[in-house]
Amino acid sequence: MISLKKLFKFSIWFLFFFFSTIVSTPARPWLGGVRRKIRHKQDMYSTFSTTKTTIHKDLKVLYYPQTLDHFNYQQESYVTFKQKYMMYSKHWGGAKDNYPIFVHFGDEEPMFNDEINWLILPDYAAKFKALVVIIEHRYYGWSKPFGMSMEEIIKNTTVRGYFNSAQALADSAEIILFLKKRLNATYSPVIVFEGSYGGMLASWFRLKYPHIALGALAASAPVLYFDNMIEQNHGYYYVVTNDFKEASENCYNTIKSSWAEIDKIGSTPKGLSYLSNKFKTCSQLQETRTLKDFLENMYDDVAQYSDTDNNPSIICKAIDQGKKGNDILSRIYAGVHAYFNGTHHNCFNTNYFDDYSVETNLGYDWQTCSEMVMPVVRGSHCLDIFSAKKDDPEWLVNQRKREVEIMSGWIKLYHNDLYKFMK
Amino acid sequence: MISLKKLFKFSIWFLFFFFSTIVSTPARPWLGGVRRKIRHKQDMYSTFSTTKTTIHKDLKVLYYPQTLDHFNYQQESYVTFKQKYMMYSKHWGGAKDNYPIFVHFGDEEPMFNDEINWLILPDYAAKFKALVVIIEHRYYGWSKPFGMSMEEIIKNTTVRGYFNSAQALADSAEIILFLKKRLNATYSPVIVFEGSYGGMLASWFRLKYPHIALGALAASAPVLYFDNMIEQNHGYYYVVTNDFKEASENCYNTIKSSWAEIDKIGSTPKGLSYLSNKFKTCSQLQETRTLKDFLENMYDDVAQYSDTDNNPSIICKAIDQGKKGNDILSRIYAGVHAYFNGTHHNCFNTNYFDDYSVETNLGYDWQTCSEMVMPVVRGSHCLDIFSAKKDDPEWLVNQRKREVEIMSGWIKLYHNDLYKFMK
Repeated sequence: MISLKKLFKFSIWFLFFFFSTIVSTPARPWLGGVRRKIRHKQDMYSTFSTTKTTIHKDLKVLYYPQTLDHFNYQQESYVTFKQKYMMYSKHWGGAKDNYPIFVHFGDEEPMFNDEINWLILPDYAAKFKALVVIIEHRYYGWSKPFGMSMEEIIKNTTVRGYFNSAQALADSAEIILFLKKRLNATYSPVIVFEGSYGGMLASWFRLKYPHIALGALAASAPVLYFDNMIEQNHGYYYVVTNDFKEASENCYNTIKSSWAEIDKIGSTPKGLSYLSNKFKTCSQLQETRTLKDFLENMYDDVAQYSDTDNNPSIICKAIDQGKKGNDILSRIYAGVHAYFNGTHHNCFNTNYFDDYSVETNLGYDWQTCSEMVMPVVRGSHCLDIFSAKKDDPEWLVNQRKREVEIMSGWIKLYHNDLYKFMK
Repeated sequence: MISLKKLFKFSIWFLFFFFSTIVSTPARPWLGGVRRKIRHKQDMYSTFSTTKTTIHKDLKVLYYPQTLDHFNYQQESYVTFKQKYMMYSKHWGGAKDNYPIFVHFGDEEPMFNDEINWLILPDYAAKFKALVVIIEHRYYGWSKPFGMSMEEIIKNTTVRGYFNSAQALADSAEIILFLKKRLNATYSPVIVFEGSYGGMLASWFRLKYPHIALGALAASAPVLYFDNMIEQNHGYYYVVTNDFKEASENCYNTIKSSWAEIDKIGSTPKGLSYLSNKFKTCSQLQETRTLKDFLENMYDDVAQYSDTDNNPSIICKAIDQGKKGNDILSRIYAGVHAYFNGTHHNCFNTNYFDDYSVETNLGYDWQTCSEMVMPVVRGSHCLDIFSAKKDDPEWLVNQRKREVEIMSGWIKLYHNDLYKFMK
């Protein structure tokens, strides 16, 4: 487990373009920031409607006619599709005095109308009298072109071609410039925010569009995970493994030897039945891969979204104590039981961790297989972009204070320069 | 005329992304840096062959299979075309000790095999033991896709679509990364260079691809001429006008009143004949516009490419002295005569200033009408990217020294950081 002290040491935030590598989009195209949010939003995903969510009175849900292709002068490039964005103006001090605009980039999931509720941005906006703008990423949620589903998009080689981060960055540039013009906020400084994939977008946006964004706050954004910029042994599974090793060397060894044990026992139909019973799987296992994936996903999840309620040491404690028996499989099962904390008594659904929406599964699979193939690293994911809670650890509270200080510095400097220039 | 002192004050160079606004791509899509070079290269343009030019023994002429569309995953985006680039390795200290790579971006004209002869880069390369790479801009010279002519490209809405600066920057990124890999020069710092449109590309490249280019030297690059970033009264014609006003207020007034005089006299066929004779035009004027364009181009040219041999004060001196007569038209004609310095005795070709190649005319017209509509400013154009001459003014010599100092600073800092990081 990563202790809070360590978490602070490897703190997850990223400002401007100085960033930590304490991040976590897995080697497989399994994402990052999204999972926790999905877990919380499961009911919304099942209905996937705009109407069920609570809308702030200070929130406007809008659609921008977005250009399909920003890098081409072919006629078909000028085709537009509706891109969802939201403006949250509760704290907005207005354009007249050049109050800032904070832009939250959407990531590989829909931007629900209550997205603002999940974010730390309203707190920051209150401090800075900022306007908050949330821009949904092209091809997710309500921003899919031509009324197509993600399944249709992925099958359509033409439309799919425009599904990449370069186009997504240009989308945001276009919307931000449009809004600044429309709001007469020419001189309002823009800061961009997000975590995980959205955090990469924020960092890249600051780099590629320095004339539009004054700064970027990117949480858990693995921007160094490309072109072999970081060393191989800082990859995702290395870190997950290390998290368990740090929690307990004995636990690590038990898990390590369990894979062969599962394969050995599961090599016969009788053995598969035994495993199904042992792990209380909701349906009979057809192959050991299913069980191993389930366990691997559990270890990943608990390392990636580590918090006081759920973290590698809770699983390891159960494994080491051998409450379900002293043999390897009983210990591993004890770990599963501890993870689920007594829920799911009847059986465990081996698809439990495949809880992304179809569009996120398909869409982000496409993105990570086309342009963003990456390993990944240490830390709990995207914590500091989510709204503050009472039981936030001290390091996180301090981190947020520091973020505010840094952003204040940027904006103050910007305003000083602006007023000097305008004299 | 702009005195040398003033030229120094408004010095034309641009390093990193601090830049002057002393630049000169005209409001009409008439370019910048290219004109002087064309004038010098007229014989080459007439033959347009690779074989006639002298090739250095240290120069390799190469072709890269360039991706047609860098921002799209459609199958047709992966189509490649041959892009010309050259490597000049005379001074190259090699990749082993991470000697730098200097990349000269091609602009809106072919990169002839002797391009290196025109550039200051060999001098700089000698100082830094650098490899010089020259990359031809897509769609110009030998880098036109699919064996098409510029006329065909401009008519073909599909191929034309990929003809823009964003794609051109990505071309260079791809070639540079490819070369670094091929030369095992992973840690050789890259500095990008050019003037005029190529200088804009260099600046933009440093901004958009900071992980590839350590710095940019851009001469006469009007990067601020977009999105109303500079004030209207710093536009191109404002500056040309001012150059003449500064040379002589009387001259300025004579030129100012000449336009109405030309129109008045040229309003009848008899008057047009009179003007044709007066200005010794090679063919009879059909309209006053032709004469006015010719004069306007002359004033532009002399302001833009001002040097000791040819500058506004030489024209103004002739105009003010009234050597060809004291009436307005005689004075203006005296200016023309002075500009051409006694050459062209028989007649003046009113198309004299339309001496760009067809592809540059068509191609850069397309570029400036699609994405780069701009006014322009003060100074002599692109001087500091051309090779040093014995009679270079002191300010230019000093400027180049300063450039070398700045680049040395970048490279030294980079190497220090690199070796620290690699320890």
